[in-house]
Amino acid sequence: MAQIINKDQIKKVIPSIDLLPIIEEGFQLYSEGKTVVPPVGELLFEKPPGEVHIKYGYIKDDDFYVIKIASGFYENTQLNISASQGLMLVFDQKTGVLKAVLLDEGLLTDIRTAVAGAIAAKYLAPKNIHQIGIVGTGIQARLQLEYLKKITDCRRVLVWARNEMNGQKMIDEFLAKGYNISFTLDASKVASSSNLIVTTTPSKTPLILAENIQAGTHITAMGSDTSDKIELDPIILSKADIVVVDSLPQSESRGEVFQTVKTDLLDRANVIELGKLISNPSLQRQNENQITIADLTGVAVQDIQIAKAVFKKILNET
Amino acid sequence: MAQIINKDQIKKVIPSIDLLPIIEEGFQLYSEGKTVVPPVGELLFEKPPGEVHIKYGYIKDDDFYVIKIASGFYENTQLNISASQGLMLVFDQKTGVLKAVLLDEGLLTDIRTAVAGAIAAKYLAPKNIHQIGIVGTGIQARLQLEYLKKITDCRRVLVWARNEMNGQKMIDEFLAKGYNISFTLDASKVASSSNLIVTTTPSKTPLILAENIQAGTHITAMGSDTSDKIELDPIILSKADIVVVDSLPQSESRGEVFQTVKTDLLDRANVIELGKLISNPSLQRQNENQITIADLTGVAVQDIQIAKAVFKKILNET
Repeated sequence: MAQIINKDQIKKVIPSIDLLPIIEEGFQLYSEGKTVVPPVGELLFEKPPGEVHIKYGYIKDDDFYVIKIASGFYENTQLNISASQGLMLVFDQKTGVLKAVLLDEGLLTDIRTAVAGAIAAKYLAPKNIHQIGIVGTGIQARLQLEYLKKITDCRRVLVWARNEMNGQKMIDEFLAKGYNISFTLDASKVASSSNLIVTTTPSKTPLILAENIQAGTHITAMGSDTSDKIELDPIILSKADIVVVDSLPQSESRGEVFQTVKTDLLDRANVIELGKLISNPSLQRQNENQITIADLTGVAVQDIQIAKAVFKKILNET
Repeated sequence: MAQIINKDQIKKVIPSIDLLPIIEEGFQLYSEGKTVVPPVGELLFEKPPGEVHIKYGYIKDDDFYVIKIASGFYENTQLNISASQGLMLVFDQKTGVLKAVLLDEGLLTDIRTAVAGAIAAKYLAPKNIHQIGIVGTGIQARLQLEYLKKITDCRRVLVWARNEMNGQKMIDEFLAKGYNISFTLDASKVASSSNLIVTTTPSKTPLILAENIQAGTHITAMGSDTSDKIELDPIILSKADIVVVDSLPQSESRGEVFQTVKTDLLDRANVIELGKLISNPSLQRQNENQITIADLTGVAVQDIQIAKAVFKKILNET
């Protein structure tokens, strides 16, 4: 029978897995055409509002295929239930037999998203990061900051919060971890004073304006993953020196690049896929003055890689 | 935590659930536009050949949403593993929380498919069924015959088998159950002597030819569920008095209706959806001379209904 793996088991093994190279390899295989990743399945709900994404696929000639279900029901927090829910399923690629049910309740999706942010920053952030700007105070805001530790020593952080309570809660948490962190309700302050910015909100209007962005800044925008969400002023992308997406096909229908191409401010021909960037140093940041953008909508290959890694780790330990 | 329900538990409760009205209601709600059923997700494999279908959706203002994964890896039988694999997932429609994992290994997909065949026959088969013709000897051949017991007393059956071993195995099984059953290797004999025919193969060339079909015959074609499978000579559909599909949108890209419309032998305007047929007696068989066809490709609403029914039954019993 399939192995049923609960969230506590997953939480326990995650710190012992070096996820950056695993997810990087996934992006590279994806950009080299060595994966099969069909379009994202989507299910929308109105009362209460919710969205479900089904991401699935496999690496060719690998042992497994993976299906990931992740949902966001943002009113859950009123019920003291996490907005993120879901699970990952690992199947045998040769027989279709279900091997593992990872009852992660959205945790692995959150983590692989944060890892992708760290990978983007690894290749695109300026060498000298004087301040990290985090836009949002949710689970991604926290995890992106956690995983950025893998690629930078900078602990000076300015957080944009929608309200004081959210801001205070987040900075209390990271002050306790030794960060030099504060919050503001004014997103333009984050934009104008940070040179590594991560946006993590489900906003439907731009929060970061072009006029506030300094030369040399890298922005990872990971909040916008549907056709109606947007966090960055399209002018930022039109002026950027490097614009990277995790998936070129997905960027045709969702995310910041989709929004910017729609307004004719960006030519799709100038957009680079993250897997290509990882493999080719000449596509990465070349100096401390470039403005660079990574627009991440989340690709099934991240789910494939993290689900396999957790399943194998737990198999080896039992 | 989500309830994990294994195949033995499912097998145990299935006989006590009256599935026909439950699945009928699903088809009606689907045809009335009261469901949300996105396009089928599909994943294909080459070495060994395999296909995975992801069907998912929900009934509006219901308690749950359902995702079903079902695969067919036809070389599994060489390994003594069932070709059908998969599972069903039941989630809370208001929060996205996973409620149940039904580890059915394809069983519920097989059953809901057979139930749909019985429903089609209930409204379309002639009153006097003198012989049931079954094309194929796999799991669906058996289950379709089992579930037809719910709508007809006819126990005279002719089976088309690809080889003697398959044919003998199937008739031994149903002889023991009191059927008057035999097999043939000549599909035209099944077609010319039966007035209720069910085709259940993954054939890529027509097995049933128009010249053999007698007036008054009903055919349920459920084997063809992709764009390249076909079991019926398109001329049969062009001459039929009533052509029904379980899903009009799916029939635009898969199944017998897709194949026939492609050859310009059938006008889509004349095709009726099963849910509409169930609700409207004037669309059902009107006399003993009509030739009727039900082309079933399998709709998520069947999975939604059967998964919910099994989950609720097991909840009530524990």
